[in-house]
Amino acid sequence: MSKSNPGPQHWSPETFRRHGHAAIDWLADYMTQVESLPVMAGVKPGDIRNQLPGQAPTDPEAFEDIMSDLDTVLVPGLMNWQSPNFFGYFPANTSPPSILGELLSAGLGQQGMLWQTSPAATELETQVLDWMVAMLGLPETFLSTGVGGGVIQDSASSATLCALLAARERSHTGSARLDGIDSAMVAYCSTETHSSMEKAMAVAGLGRSRLRKIETDKAQRLSVAALEQTILEDLDRGLKPIFVCATVGTTSTLAIDPVDEIGALCARHHIWLHVDAAMAGTAALCDEFRSIHKGVETADSYCVNPHKWMLTNFDCDCFYVADREPLIAALTVLPEYLRNEASEKGDVIDYRDWQIPLGRRFRALKLWMVIRSYGVKALQQLVRKHVELATNLAAKISNDARFELAAEPNLNLLCFRMRGSDRLNQRLLARLNESGRLFLTHTVIGGQFAIRVCIGQTYTELRHVDAAWEEIQSSATELEGEGQ
Amino acid sequence: MSKSNPGPQHWSPETFRRHGHAAIDWLADYMTQVESLPVMAGVKPGDIRNQLPGQAPTDPEAFEDIMSDLDTVLVPGLMNWQSPNFFGYFPANTSPPSILGELLSAGLGQQGMLWQTSPAATELETQVLDWMVAMLGLPETFLSTGVGGGVIQDSASSATLCALLAARERSHTGSARLDGIDSAMVAYCSTETHSSMEKAMAVAGLGRSRLRKIETDKAQRLSVAALEQTILEDLDRGLKPIFVCATVGTTSTLAIDPVDEIGALCARHHIWLHVDAAMAGTAALCDEFRSIHKGVETADSYCVNPHKWMLTNFDCDCFYVADREPLIAALTVLPEYLRNEASEKGDVIDYRDWQIPLGRRFRALKLWMVIRSYGVKALQQLVRKHVELATNLAAKISNDARFELAAEPNLNLLCFRMRGSDRLNQRLLARLNESGRLFLTHTVIGGQFAIRVCIGQTYTELRHVDAAWEEIQSSATELEGEGQ
Repeated sequence: MSKSNPGPQHWSPETFRRHGHAAIDWLADYMTQVESLPVMAGVKPGDIRNQLPGQAPTDPEAFEDIMSDLDTVLVPGLMNWQSPNFFGYFPANTSPPSILGELLSAGLGQQGMLWQTSPAATELETQVLDWMVAMLGLPETFLSTGVGGGVIQDSASSATLCALLAARERSHTGSARLDGIDSAMVAYCSTETHSSMEKAMAVAGLGRSRLRKIETDKAQRLSVAALEQTILEDLDRGLKPIFVCATVGTTSTLAIDPVDEIGALCARHHIWLHVDAAMAGTAALCDEFRSIHKGVETADSYCVNPHKWMLTNFDCDCFYVADREPLIAALTVLPEYLRNEASEKGDVIDYRDWQIPLGRRFRALKLWMVIRSYGVKALQQLVRKHVELATNLAAKISNDARFELAAEPNLNLLCFRMRGSDRLNQRLLARLNESGRLFLTHTVIGGQFAIRVCIGQTYTELRHVDAAWEEIQSSATELEGEGQ
Repeated sequence: MSKSNPGPQHWSPETFRRHGHAAIDWLADYMTQVESLPVMAGVKPGDIRNQLPGQAPTDPEAFEDIMSDLDTVLVPGLMNWQSPNFFGYFPANTSPPSILGELLSAGLGQQGMLWQTSPAATELETQVLDWMVAMLGLPETFLSTGVGGGVIQDSASSATLCALLAARERSHTGSARLDGIDSAMVAYCSTETHSSMEKAMAVAGLGRSRLRKIETDKAQRLSVAALEQTILEDLDRGLKPIFVCATVGTTSTLAIDPVDEIGALCARHHIWLHVDAAMAGTAALCDEFRSIHKGVETADSYCVNPHKWMLTNFDCDCFYVADREPLIAALTVLPEYLRNEASEKGDVIDYRDWQIPLGRRFRALKLWMVIRSYGVKALQQLVRKHVELATNLAAKISNDARFELAAEPNLNLLCFRMRGSDRLNQRLLARLNESGRLFLTHTVIGGQFAIRVCIGQTYTELRHVDAAWEEIQSSATELEGEGQ
């Protein structure tokens, strides 16, 4: 019999059980305490790093020591995105069932690149993404049972990039496959579209300057008239319009582009329409908000992020195409070592051809656990509650003469400013965030600095919004007292 | 006081604690049992999906019911990548400390897109990636303390794409930024390079046909003479060589390209050299294998995947650049809503500019927990053990007249064939995998079908390799008995 090296010492299953329970307990305590932690870290660049050793340890360290460093070194450097007092950027929600879904996914260690490498991960993903079509009132063209289908991407950025690559592929008419780009290709979005659209143009080699940023109307919605005019001008110049990105819920003010009119225009010119509904799409769970998806049936692709407002921890972006053929054609590569019978027969989905990376985690598991643990009705209640909280806060702001709404509130997002200079509002925002008692971010609307309040964290209740409003009012009073 | 919707029922922290302990216990049991489960799922396309309901539930379902479906519906459809009898593709290892790192990351719900959005996630990542430079004997140019630095990507595919984008950016000489591609650009790899290189060419808009796949020598290493000749021919034709991908450990046979010679050639022609050491790079933890990194100091970028052979669950690819400027220039976009004081001052790292997506998880946490829980010495022992197991198995195969090695074994990978036809070997492989007792994959070497054995799973011991060898021998005997 061969002699073998001893190999490393692993934790026994019993040790894993013990430390695992401790990690769960630590998180349960964190969930209980996070409300009272400062939302924004009060650290300066280098503060965390300076407490970390310069070299990796040679010998094993005790789990308890690592957890102790988590408490003392890392926790003070967190932005507490899971605090109910977090109103910044967008919600990056997690929830108890989602955390356990991610835990199980990590432990199962599946690689879902091919159906063959994890039939369960592949088929659960297909099924849950079909569920989402019905849940959000999306068009049946996005169901996997036809020629379209859905896939989980890491982010809306990657979804936009994949949509652009599929559009680039489809725009090639003729029998030979497009190879590389055609220097006449142009794409369109609005001045309010997410920055990932510009990044996608850069990555795809089309070039940032080939992206036309169309003006918006007073409600920050893409102007269809301006879009049409620009497309016609580009066609006159011999350019090739291939892609429009419409947004259901812009980052800045949650404006909802007129997707139906944009879709009609795209259809006339055979342009790929992608709809980015990253955060706002979740609102379509509720009948009363479903109109945000008006016109989505004209889209070639669409994405929504359960990792924003649907209680599923990052990363989980649901990306749909009405026709999967150009997407797969753009992204497929088949080396010998990945060949297998199931794929060759063509009766399975190999999700590696639907995304940029090859490897993929079992991300459908957490989405499945969230949807089943909450049920659709509770997810609808979450949306209704957040929208109501935002609507009520907007009313209070409107009724206080010192403030004004900087844009029409939409769903769970509102933007306001204190009457006065941009500088005053910047000072107000900095003071609020430095207090640690809440966290807000900003935007610029019509050239003016505005403070954004996005209400969507898993545990945000009325009392957190009320406390935030009191904090805003008292900070404003302080600033007035300081003579600005 | 405002009246509010009740919102959804969440699990209380106590409920999370209870279900969390149950999930940990379930995983501890899975770890104990996985060795006796079939490695490859014995399911046909649709088998899993047909057991799943067609619609999402309206009302909450009990955690116990969900876990029961995990057991009865999903587990039979897994490929058990975490079985010590898994010898396919590459190891996609997880380990107990890594699982808990991912759990904590999910619960903390950090978004590390900017330093500001999680100082702790950002600074821990920078520090741990600097640790890895010393651990693997990588050049100091990759340290974050200079003009280079490291970042965690989801996969080597994304690392290769980002390297190509940085090279595309850098290749633009002159004062204006490159916008889009230059139709003269060409890139190089070998016929054995991972398929992600071709995918990156397609994504980046350079085009698949602009990738030159250079021939290899008899040991499947890129031929430097052929590379030089092709570069010179391309230059003569007015083309612009911008990128070479060298591989430390090819997918098929773990061949190690002569990085030092390739680097010297790239330096002469000012071509970006990327080194893909996805699986094999981990071997450089050990002094006796560190020579695989010979010449890496000439590289502009490099990647290694702790999510393959270093006990860290997917995704965790460590990607390094010697100069971060062209990478950031290729990928940065700065919308108003992401502006913040720390970024503007330029004294922090914002990792969103080092990757394709905007959002990012706190992935450094699991890598930190793995390195600290094991210590470097134990990680070295893991590599030594796996290499020894592979070396011993190769010797046994060589000594059995019915078999032959299909290529020189390298580190933890060996390829063999049963003497006879490709068809015979295909039947052997199918029989082995269908037994469920082990899982192997295949490749084609010199036009011949070969069976690959990659030894790298966390818990693989001598007895698993011995059992695999017995299974191979007895299946071969059966096939001979069937008269082939």
